[in-house]
This record gives sequence, C-alpha cells and structure tokens, in this order.
Amino acid sequence: MRMYDIILKKRNGQELRDDEINFFINGYTENTIPDYQAAALAMAIYFNGMTDKETATLTNAMAFSGNTLDLSVFGNLSADKHSTGGVGDKTSLIVAPILASLGCKVAKMSGRGLGHTGGTVDKLDAIPGYRVNLKPDEFIDQVKQIGISIIGQSGNMTPADKKLYALRDVTATVESIPLITSSIMSKKIAAGSKNIILDVKVGSGAFMKTLEDATTLAEKMVEIGKRCNRNIAALLTDMNTPLGYNIGNLLEVKEAVYVLKGENISDLREVCTALASNLLSLSLNLDIKEAEERVNDAIDTGLAYKKMEEWILAQGGDFSAIESDDEYYKSNKYELIAQKSGYISNMNAQDIGTISVILGAGRAKKEDLIDYKAGIVINKKTNDFVKEGDLLCTFYTMNKSAVKEASKRYINAIEFSDSISEEKSLIYKVIR
Amino acid sequence: MRMYDIILKKRNGQELRDDEINFFINGYTENTIPDYQAAALAMAIYFNGMTDKETATLTNAMAFSGNTLDLSVFGNLSADKHSTGGVGDKTSLIVAPILASLGCKVAKMSGRGLGHTGGTVDKLDAIPGYRVNLKPDEFIDQVKQIGISIIGQSGNMTPADKKLYALRDVTATVESIPLITSSIMSKKIAAGSKNIILDVKVGSGAFMKTLEDATTLAEKMVEIGKRCNRNIAALLTDMNTPLGYNIGNLLEVKEAVYVLKGENISDLREVCTALASNLLSLSLNLDIKEAEERVNDAIDTGLAYKKMEEWILAQGGDFSAIESDDEYYKSNKYELIAQKSGYISNMNAQDIGTISVILGAGRAKKEDLIDYKAGIVINKKTNDFVKEGDLLCTFYTMNKSAVKEASKRYINAIEFSDSISEEKSLIYKVIR
Repeated sequence: MRMYDIILKKRNGQELRDDEINFFINGYTENTIPDYQAAALAMAIYFNGMTDKETATLTNAMAFSGNTLDLSVFGNLSADKHSTGGVGDKTSLIVAPILASLGCKVAKMSGRGLGHTGGTVDKLDAIPGYRVNLKPDEFIDQVKQIGISIIGQSGNMTPADKKLYALRDVTATVESIPLITSSIMSKKIAAGSKNIILDVKVGSGAFMKTLEDATTLAEKMVEIGKRCNRNIAALLTDMNTPLGYNIGNLLEVKEAVYVLKGENISDLREVCTALASNLLSLSLNLDIKEAEERVNDAIDTGLAYKKMEEWILAQGGDFSAIESDDEYYKSNKYELIAQKSGYISNMNAQDIGTISVILGAGRAKKEDLIDYKAGIVINKKTNDFVKEGDLLCTFYTMNKSAVKEASKRYINAIEFSDSISEEKSLIYKVIR
Repeated sequence: MRMYDIILKKRNGQELRDDEINFFINGYTENTIPDYQAAALAMAIYFNGMTDKETATLTNAMAFSGNTLDLSVFGNLSADKHSTGGVGDKTSLIVAPILASLGCKVAKMSGRGLGHTGGTVDKLDAIPGYRVNLKPDEFIDQVKQIGISIIGQSGNMTPADKKLYALRDVTATVESIPLITSSIMSKKIAAGSKNIILDVKVGSGAFMKTLEDATTLAEKMVEIGKRCNRNIAALLTDMNTPLGYNIGNLLEVKEAVYVLKGENISDLREVCTALASNLLSLSLNLDIKEAEERVNDAIDTGLAYKKMEEWILAQGGDFSAIESDDEYYKSNKYELIAQKSGYISNMNAQDIGTISVILGAGRAKKEDLIDYKAGIVINKKTNDFVKEGDLLCTFYTMNKSAVKEASKRYINAIEFSDSISEEKSLIYKVIR
C-alpha cells in the first residue's frame, strides 16, 4: 500500500477503505509517512469530506494509536462529558459530582485552557492541595470507592491526533467537520467511558459561531460515537454570553459550589441540569423526565454537594479554602462602574474570555503562568437594566497595570439598548 | 506575511496577490517554508485553481528562482520549442536546424528521457563525440556563429520548480492545469527565448489523453507565455501512433537526417513543418503561408540539412557516423513477422515506447544506462495492410533476452481490422 494512492483516492472523491485509513494513521504515528503527505491528505479531506464510515474508522484508528483507559470494570456505568469550550464554563465541576452522587462512575481526564476558554484541570489546580496527577491505579481506585475522580491527561494518549492536529493547525485544515469530529471523538473513545454527553457551544464565545455549523458537528459526533459503540447525546448550548457570573479558575470553582448548594444561578444551573439529566438518562437507561427529577433532587437535597466535598478531599484538596473569604479578594479588587444607563443587549463572550486572560486567569501562550485567583465577577448580564453608576463587574488581579486595558475592553464588549429583548432558552437542541 | 494565511486564502477560493505568491516561492526555495505547507497549498490549488494572473506570477517567480539564460544579444530572433513528450518524437532535431537555416537563433536546452518518452539530450548523446555540456560562453558563441546549439540543462535553473514538482509527484497534486502550466512555462521563460512553439501531444502515447484536456492546457500555456512577454503558439498534435518509423536514440537521429534530406516520411515531416512554420512566423513576424514556403524550401534545397551537419560538427559530433551503416545494426537485429492479415487499426504508442525501454533505448529508473543504438524500426503503421508473413517491425538490442517479451508486447500493442479507417490530419489545432 502506498500513501500516494490514498491521497489520490481521496482527492478524486472516493471513499477510503478501513485498511487504507489504518495504514495512514499507523504510518503517520510511526513517522514512516511524512508530514507533507499527511498535509495533502488533510486538505483533500477538507474539500471532499469523509463518509460516516470513514470518520468512524479514522476516530478508532486515532483512539487506539496510543494508550487508552480501560473502564470495563465499571460496566455500563462509566460516564464522561465533553465541552467544545466556552467562557465561564465550569459545568464539569457540577455535572461530575451530580452523576457520581446518583450511581454513575466518573473517571474523567480533562485538559488545560488555552486562549480565551478555560480548562477544567486549571480550575482544579486552583484548589490548594488538589492532585491532578494521580497514578493510574490511584485514579481507578478512587472511582471505585467514591464514584468520581478528575485528573489531567497523562501517558501517551492519542498521539496520532496530537500530531495531526498540530499539522492541521499550520496548514489551514482545522475547519473540517470529519477531522474535528474524529479529533474530539478519538480522545473520548480513548478515555474509555461507555456514556458520553457532548456540550457543543454556539455563539460569539464558541468555536462554532452558528447554530447550523454546531448542529452539523454535533450530529456527526453523535453518529460517530454510536458507531464506536457508545451511548451518546449532544446538547447545543448558548455561548453568546459567559456562563454564570464568575470567570477565572478559583472563582469558577466557587461558583460551582454555589450551584451545588442550591443557590440559583439560573443560566448555569439550567445548562448543568440539562447536561446531567441527559447523561444520567443514557447511563441508567432512564426516561429523561425521571433523570431530570433525580438530578434536581441530588442538588436540592445536598447529595451532590456532599459528593463534591468527598471528591475534593479524597484527591487531597482543601475544600474549606474554596468557600473561605480570602484576603486576595479584598486586596486585589477593582470595580467597573457603568457610565451610562440602558439594557445590556449583548456581551461578547470571547472578548470577556480574553479580558480574563489579560487579568492573569489564563494563558495566551502554553508556557504562561496562571494567577489562579484572578478573574472577573460579572454583576450585570444580558437583559439586565443598568443605571449610570451601577457596578458592571469586578476584576480580581495581581497585575494592577492590566486593569485599565481590561476596563476599556470590557466596556467595548458590552452593548446597550433602550429595550429588553426576548428571553431565550440556553439549550438550543438535544441530539440523541 | 504568514504562509498559513496564504494557504487559507487559496483554500477559501480567493485570488492570491503577487507578493503572496512571491513570498511562497522565495520561502520554499530558501527552505524557510516547509514541505507540508507547500503540499497543503498545492492541494488547495488543485481544488480551487488559479487565475491567469496568479499563474503568470507563479510562472515568473519560479522562472527567476535560480539562474536564467540571457539571450537578449539575439534581439527578437531567439526561438525555442517545447514538446510535452511522445514516442518517436525527434522533431527538435529537425525543427531546430530548419529555423537556424532561416535566420533564427536556436540556443536550446533540452532534457533527458524517462519512462516511455525519449529526451533530446539522450538522442544527441548517441552521436559519437557530440558535446551536450558546452560551457555557457561556448554555447552562446556557437549560436552567434552558426545560429544553433542544443545542450543539456545545466546550472541552478528553476530550483523552485524542481522542488515543487518533486513534492507534487508524491502528494497527488500533479494533475492541476495551473501547476502544470507554471512548471513548463517557468522553464521556458528561464531558458530565455523570445519566440516559443509548444507541441502539445494528444493520445495514447501522451501525457494528455483527450483533445479537451490538451486544449485547456495549451490555451493556458499560450496565455501565460503572452503575459510573460513572449511570442508564443501551441500545436495540438497526434500521439496515438509513434511519430515516424524509428524509435530509439541513434535510430531517431538517423530518421531526422532522412527528413532533412527530403525523404518523405509523411507524418513526421507534416508535424515538423507545421511546428517550424509557426515558430518562424512568430520569430520573423511572417504570414503563416510565407513561413510554410520558406520552411519547405529549406528542406527541399538542402539548406536545413547543411545546417544540421554544420551544427553537429561544430559541437564535436561525428556526422558521418549518423549516416554510416553500422555493424551493430547487422548483428543485433530481430525481425517480427505478422501471424495474421488485416489493416492495422490502432497502435498503442505508450506500450511501444515501453518496449523500446525494454530493448535498452530508455530508462525505467533515473540511474539506468542506455543502449544508444537500440530501438525499433516500424515497418507497418496504422491503416497499412499487413499480409501474414509480412515484416511488422525490427528490434535492435544488445539484450537478446528481452526480445521475446518485446515481441509479445508489440503484438498486443497493435490492433487489426478488416477495413481501412479515415485518414486524419496529425495537427488537431493551432492556438496562437
């Protein structure tokens, strides 16, 4: 078999066979197929697409190109969640303990943030003592004992995807639905859970800007997940506005705890219960209404909150530090006051994510250090009425010199209107 | 400027600016742009094409990526010919001395053969003593003195094209009209002649199998040549049947001499006079009828024959060795006899070219050695009537063991019919 013939076939719009796709992924992983041939194939895929069969084969080939997590000990109860990335997105910190408190097994590997979106591992790193690097057997043992553990990615997972993604990033071949699908899904398949909920974000702060594009991607991911023998569903959720009120690592952990304590942070609770209900329904094979009831009960009775505390403590974290009133937040506080009145009609979530990076809460480059306590607490959100002199938001940062720039950008990121606009659900679609 | 943005722009179907194309070619030549980005761009060009403006800019950028030949000393009289490659194609050996005998200046660099098509430099190497490697000033001096010299390619000519062609060859991006056009035309522009005739072969023995594809390529090359300030025309000529009767290096030189001595080898003379007339008409700005008369006169009066002798002798070749009856052709001769009767309705020129390689007349791999005297003399061609027992062709080779395979393949390469088919002109089209 020759890589040349595989490129030619895809270039000519034909469907690749399983052995051809496996030949490519094996050879590319082992460096016997050069980058320039992989780049030509990626561009041919960009133009000619891939069938669902091809995409599933590519996904599997990349999933098994390195180490995988074996969660078979948990039968059909293992449950995982993936978000395409947003601003203020702390849903994993809420959904995971809810699921664990209801009998699911959440053995989850998460990533770090880059650019304007955050990463779950950075948020957990903000908790003093929390160990994101458990050894494999510690990780599995903890899930056996309490039903939940979240760690950073470790080992040689999906090396083919890492290599191919880095190549696509410099050859203008990222924006291909089958390639995006196989990249995301290969990591989920390698991560081993039987039940998967996908949170596909849509809007100004998301990778997918339109509902149409997001629907196409979500449908494809669900289809590929099923072909790879997983129970899977996708929610399309709003990311035109940051989710919740807190942005920044420790600030987001705090907000997750508020939700689990039953404080009504309406948009955040809505998205989290929808994600949790769908995942629970897949995992326990429940009717969605029944799943919703159990999820709301888990929050309202404090069961999920207790599970979160148990989890953070089990993994070495200082749970009381999350809830304590830290000196940092008194000394490094900068309030942004409204200079005019009106309804907020729009917030640019991506810009607000970028402001949090400027304040020190995220990385512009991989090697940047994070100020875990830095971030933004939003006071007024879309459709809120603001009076001149009201508090718009509060910045927390150790980098005082960044506040001026952050303030200017924040003012530019919000739009005002004379009237209130129609309230819309944050859940656009459920694809199962 | 970033190569990523250039790939993205072409991927999205936009026209690249001159500075973007020059940035790519300069960077690729100097190895600051990696192969994988060039491969992605080539595939994007395969799918989205290039405008004539882009193609002309790419052609110029590649033409001036290395050394070029300065023929300005010859004013508007410099004349060059390019063939897309065929079997039995010895037209350069005939057209060049005709043009030189009529006042044009032919300072020509030619290539070697690979695969089933021959190369002019190999044919000239078959002449004892002929120096294909003149020094640059010897080359120009000879053209000044006698109007003609043909040498092998030397120096660092069009390095960008060499690199890009080698990459396209392994990434399935060869078959792109703008990339083929710019590859061919960059070499012609670098070779410096003001007047260019292109012989675009069409048919079973040619790179272009259909008249439609060949027309598209020819029109594009003529357009790009004009944009690069050249006088240029293209002929689309038949390559379903080998041209003339002789295939093999010395055998083809011999046949070229027959034509210049006025022996009527109808198909070969027809194509050569058409090429020569069009090139003469461009070079001297003559009406095509007037040019045809001068070309036929040059053959019929022996003027062109004398010019060929002068040229071969000037370049160190033993002209008498071409015309002598060599012992080789008596000792290494194998006749193929017809086993049935009928009209020959078709000859597969590519297969017959491959047979000549098997006999030792060409290279299957770059490093192969050539038997310069080996080859095929065809006795019966398309539309000839063959009686059982007639001579079909004669093989000449030092590799006796190849004759059996060659005979079998030759029989398979010709088709018989009960009736004669319509005679068609070998010149399908002239594009000026």
